Order: sequence, then structure tokens, then C-alpha cells
Amino acid sequence: MNLSIIVIGDEILLGQVTDTNSGFIARTLGPEGWKLKRVLTVGDDPADIRQAINICMADSQLVITTGGLGPTKDDLTKAVLTERFGGELRRDPAVTENIRRVFSLRGLTMNPLTADQALVPTSCRVIQNRFGTAPIMWFEEAGRVLIAMPGVPFETEGMIAAEAGEEILRHFRADTHIAHHTMLASGITESALASRLEAFENSIKGRGHLAYLPVPGYIRLRLDTTATTKEQAEATAEDMAADLRRHLGPHLLYDGDATPAELVIEQMRSLGLTLGTAESCTGGNIARSITAIAGASDIFAGSVVSYSNEVKQQTLGVSALTLAQHGAVSEPVVQQMARGACRALGTDCAVATSGIAGPGGGTADKPVGTVWMAVHTPYGTESRCMRLPGNRARVTDRATTEVLLMLYTTLAKNSGKNLAE
Amino acid sequence: MNLSIIVIGDEILLGQVTDTNSGFIARTLGPEGWKLKRVLTVGDDPADIRQAINICMADSQLVITTGGLGPTKDDLTKAVLTERFGGELRRDPAVTENIRRVFSLRGLTMNPLTADQALVPTSCRVIQNRFGTAPIMWFEEAGRVLIAMPGVPFETEGMIAAEAGEEILRHFRADTHIAHHTMLASGITESALASRLEAFENSIKGRGHLAYLPVPGYIRLRLDTTATTKEQAEATAEDMAADLRRHLGPHLLYDGDATPAELVIEQMRSLGLTLGTAESCTGGNIARSITAIAGASDIFAGSVVSYSNEVKQQTLGVSALTLAQHGAVSEPVVQQMARGACRALGTDCAVATSGIAGPGGGTADKPVGTVWMAVHTPYGTESRCMRLPGNRARVTDRATTEVLLMLYTTLAKNSGKNLAE
Repeated sequence: MNLSIIVIGDEILLGQVTDTNSGFIARTLGPEGWKLKRVLTVGDDPADIRQAINICMADSQLVITTGGLGPTKDDLTKAVLTERFGGELRRDPAVTENIRRVFSLRGLTMNPLTADQALVPTSCRVIQNRFGTAPIMWFEEAGRVLIAMPGVPFETEGMIAAEAGEEILRHFRADTHIAHHTMLASGITESALASRLEAFENSIKGRGHLAYLPVPGYIRLRLDTTATTKEQAEATAEDMAADLRRHLGPHLLYDGDATPAELVIEQMRSLGLTLGTAESCTGGNIARSITAIAGASDIFAGSVVSYSNEVKQQTLGVSALTLAQHGAVSEPVVQQMARGACRALGTDCAVATSGIAGPGGGTADKPVGTVWMAVHTPYGTESRCMRLPGNRARVTDRATTEVLLMLYTTLAKNSGKNLAE
Repeated sequence: MNLSIIVIGDEILLGQVTDTNSGFIARTLGPEGWKLKRVLTVGDDPADIRQAINICMADSQLVITTGGLGPTKDDLTKAVLTERFGGELRRDPAVTENIRRVFSLRGLTMNPLTADQALVPTSCRVIQNRFGTAPIMWFEEAGRVLIAMPGVPFETEGMIAAEAGEEILRHFRADTHIAHHTMLASGITESALASRLEAFENSIKGRGHLAYLPVPGYIRLRLDTTATTKEQAEATAEDMAADLRRHLGPHLLYDGDATPAELVIEQMRSLGLTLGTAESCTGGNIARSITAIAGASDIFAGSVVSYSNEVKQQTLGVSALTLAQHGAVSEPVVQQMARGACRALGTDCAVATSGIAGPGGGTADKPVGTVWMAVHTPYGTESRCMRLPGNRARVTDRATTEVLLMLYTTLAKNSGKNLAE
């Protein structure tokens, strides 16, 4: 069944806020048989909102709008909805009660502008918003449903994962099920991989589809298939996956979907090893990507972000002589950083980075994007230098990915585990 | 003038990739007089791409498509474009040469699939893509322009900031100019602020518009206005801004647009102070948000991410007795962490966090979201405890914002600087 999402908000069209709600809704409702047909982002403008509703209601059984609600811009979106679905605005006592509850939880008192969030069209049914003050409004028209939700990701995600999502499942009997299987490939470009997998792609025509999702440092491959039962869809996906594994051969990095940080955490947990990081150019990004995952503390002790040379020397024990002779962005320094992190943080393993993220600081010898990386494990210290493309954020993110994958493959190789297992 | 963006890609509708190109394009072309009217995201489906082009070409002088190109899905988008704008696919030698150049820079050799990226409709003019292999195609129809760009942010951003953006400016004489002025407000809810600013908003009707952009921890306020000359738009925006400053009074956090990390870097640079961080629950996120900004090394020495209690003791010198008596998430521990970071990293100031980001680890006494924060400066040590809402990522991001704003206001207060200045 088709789903369309309408994102409402000038702040998104001005590029000041990035929409992440639609991705969350797609990931949550997709496995239940909903195909996201389009996302249409429009400003806080009645004519544009009206047109968006017309376009989406024409071919989608379910339309979800996000944003355009909230104390400072309620009127506009609610007026368009009332015009489209009929009825009139009336104060809903249950919504008023919910607003009072949310405000008292936050230790605040309600003011008139907030109180008016309780005005809802009589043509809708309200789903109480547990996470905020804007009511969630459910409209129906000729068997199709439009749900108006707030724009704050915390509220929309919370409600889609709970009451609003459950109402959708109850209302529609899903008649199509989708199964996905994701694998990670590395050591090959997207186009070379596509040539390698041409025969495989021909062999699955009619049964499913392979999508290439390149991310800096590796390639995500997603197989998908649809069927009328969940079991049938999953069996077809598993058949295709077995085939794909054979075709990938040595380029299979991981059979499943995981971030580099998740790969490392899972692997180190199973090996009983602990990790620390010593970061110069990545500035804490490696530590952050690891600690973003719940349970990271099983393997992660901490990090020394040694942005200055003084910290490299005093906290990580990098030699002043080495720094003077080779510079901070060099193989001996990054190796000493990795070993120093193990000592300072009391861990079995450490990863270290030292590079020039830009925009300034590049030289003819070491241009912007030059990053030295080291991995220290019980099996020794390994290091490599890469020239990474792009701006500061891109260099930092790519270096984070590369050094984590370097640790993963080093441990996989040395601990005798088969990478493709 | 109206701009519409069409984002093409199944991976976006599946929620596996978030579109950031449209925000970048909006921020780059907005100041040149382009109003982004809509962003329409569709899958790799000819009928949906065709419909999207029809909708957008109907009311926008400029339409930019991103994605739907690349070695594995070229055919589809190019077929729709050839059908719409006429001509036929022909191999472009200049594009072939560009692909060869990009591949040789990356140390790779061209394969047939990549070589076919050089097939372009004869109805378009090509802008060479300096950052990748997919050619940028410029189509014209009845005075309107459609530009097809790749989906990789690095390539699209690079070209919009350079050749593609310049071509757009040359082709259209911008007849409308927009001026913005952004301020940050804090210590007040969105709805209370809206009540406070009601008179102000009425006073600018017809001249401009005020938008509320709440972010966790503070509120961004954006004034905008349009005029036929750049000077006129800027003068009106400045008039309204002077008025808004008066109405905000003590709630004006900053007159301009900056992230908390940018505020702190600018302030510490002007005060000649240096900074370190000691992070437990934020796991490196504070360091990362500071080092994400070029020039951070002027004030930032580094960080100790003390995820384990051992690192808190050994590297930051937190007392074992205090940890045993009060627990890691406590006022005395976070204060010792901040002072310990100044010692270990040799800085004038430090911020520290210790909290429970969830999902596990909460107790009745210290539920998930409890975060202790401390700021140590030459003026002493200050600390506070907050109960932050939301999931792990939300708690971490909010704690990062709060502790940086705490440092900013502490230094502003003590260094005698007027916050509203």
C-alpha cells in the first residue's frame, strides 16, 4: 500500500532544519507493508499545503503530514485541513488536559497561545500526543486516511513508534509484506561491483531487486522482495542472499546491516577485548560514534582527544623528539598515540588518527585530507596513510570509518575469524 | 523566483539515507533571490519522476533534480529526461575524458558501466562534474531550466557552490532579494516567547516575517524580508532587528546565528582562554562539536572521554572515595572531572558531563536523562543537574548544548560582557 508524507515548514525549505521524520516513518512502517511513494516538502503556505494534499490523497491510501502545527503556526495548517475535510474548529477538553499535563511535567504554566493548540476540527479524531502539546489529528475520506502530526522529531518518532503507528496497523490490514536483506561490501568501487554482480542481478529479475547504497569507505547492498505473506517474502530474500554471498566472495565485509562502530563493538565483545581511542584530526568523532551505541561501555573505556601537541606528549607520552623530527601528522607519531592510549586508558586495543582535516593547514607534502591512522592490538601496531577527499566534515567522518574498519579487519584476520562468516 | 528540487532515490524513501542536498541548495541559492517552493522526493520509478517534473516545471523557473544518476541507475532518469526534453542519447567525449580523469585520480581504471555515464541526451548542455563521474545536465524549456545533478552530497554541494551555481546566477537576473537576520533566545518557552513578541509581530506585518525555529536548549528566531534591491532588503531587516532586540530584552542569548560551539570558540578567542572537556555520558560529542569548526585549535587543547571509572580516576584524578560514596553521576564527581581536565590538558577552562543517557542504567533516584554538568573557569567551578527528555542521542546532544551554553553565560557574566551586546 502507498504512503505519502507531506513535510510542512519554511525552516526546512530555507535549509535551516533537515527533515528526518520521513526517514523514521519509512523505516518503521516499511516492514509492515507500506511503500513510501513520495515525500513532498512545502512551506507554511495554504495554497502549497492544499496542492500537496491533493497530489498525495490521489494515489496514497495513507498520507502523513508532519509540521505546520505548534503554538506559533497552528492556524494555517488547521484551516486548510478544516476546509478539506469539513467541520469546524472546536476546543477539545482532552487535548487541553494533555497540554496542562505536559506543561506541568516541564514545570511551566500554560499561556493563551498554547491553550489554543486544543482547537481541533470536528471532522477529525484526536490521538493524544504523549510527548508534546500538539494534538495528532486523524482524518478519513473515501477509505483513505490523513494523519496530521507535529514536526518535532522526538514527538513524531515517539508517537509513530507507539499509539499512532498502532492505530495505522489496526486500521489497514497489510496485504503486502516486504523483506530486506542488507550486506556490506568493501575493497571495490560501485561500478566494478555492479559489473561483478551483473549475472546475479539478471538471475533475480522478477523475484526481487538489488540496490547499491554507497557510503564513504564501503558499499551497502540491499536486497528486497515483496510477497503476500511475511514468510514467503523472507524465504525469497534468504534464497537471494545466499546467492549474493557467493557472488561477493572476498568483497563481503559483513553479512547484515551495521555501522563500522557496531561491527567493532560486536566483534570486541565476542573476543573479550577493550578499546580506547587517541584522536587528533577526528577530534572525538570516533569516541562519539562508538558511545552513540547502547552497551558500548562493555568494551569502550574512553578516549584522549589530543588536539594540541602538549596533550599528545603529556597524556599519551608521544616523544617530543619524534614530534619535532616528523611532525604531528606522521607514522611514528600516530603509532605512539595508539600505544599511548592503551597505556593511559588501560585498554587492550586502541585506534589513533592524526591528519589535516582542512580547510587550512595543508602543505605540498601533506595536503588537506592527509590522515595517518594506527591500530594497536595484542597482535601489534599497524598504520596507514590515506588522502581523503572533501571538506572538514567529510575527512573526519571518512577517517573515523576507515580506522574502525581497519581495526575490524585486523582483529578478524588475527583472531582467525572468517570475515565472510 | 521559484525553485523546486526533485530528489530521486529509493534509498531515501526507504529511510536509509537522509537528503541533505536540498538544504544545501536552499542555503546557497536563497541569498541570491531564489525561494525554494518545494522539495519532492520520489523513487527510481519513471512514472513518479515524470509526474514530479510536471508538477515542478508548472510553477518554478528553476528545477534541480538530485540523484537517479550513477553507474547503476543511470538509464532510468536519463530516459525520462530524453522523453521530456527531446533529442537522443549520445556519447559525449568531454564527459568520457572527465570520467577517465576522476578514475585516474583515484588510481582506478574505467569499466564499461562507468563509461556509459558519458551517454547524455542531445537536448542538454553538459556542465563537467569536477567531483565525480556523473555529468551535470542543463535543459531549457520555455524560459525555464531543469538541471540534473548527481545525488552524492560531496559532488552536488561542490558543484552548486562553484560552476553550477555560477551558471544559474548568470542565466537568471535575480529580481528579488531576500534579507535574513537571525537571533538566539533562551530561558523561555516557544509559546511564552510568542506571547511576548505578539506586538512586535503585528508591527512588522507587510514589511517582513518572523519565524520560530526551536532547537533543544534555545530558540532561533529568523526575520526575513524581500525587496527589489539587496540594499533595501538589508535596511528593512536591520530596522526590524533593532526592534526585535528591544522586545527580547533579557531573553536575547546572541544577536546572530551561531551554534553553541561557535559561540564558545568566538568568546574564548576574544578572552584569550583555552578549553578542554571531560566527558562521560556525552562520549566525545562535545569535543566533536567544537573540533567540527575550523580554527577550533586556537582555543581547544583536547578532551578526556572518561567512559570508565578507571579513566576518571587515573587520567582525571577523580577520587575513588568520592566515586564510591556518591556514584559517577553526581555533583562532586563532575566537579572533580572539570578541574581534573584543566590539570590533565593544561587548559584555563573545562566543561564536564556525567549522566545516564539510556536506554539502560536508570534508577528511581537517577532516572535515564539525569545529567550532571560542570564548568570550571578562572572564576571558579559551577555545576548543575538536569533531567533531559528523549532517547540516548537526544540526551547526549542536549547535554552538549546545555553545558556549552552554561560555559558561555558563565564567562559572559564574569568577564563583564553584556550578553545582549
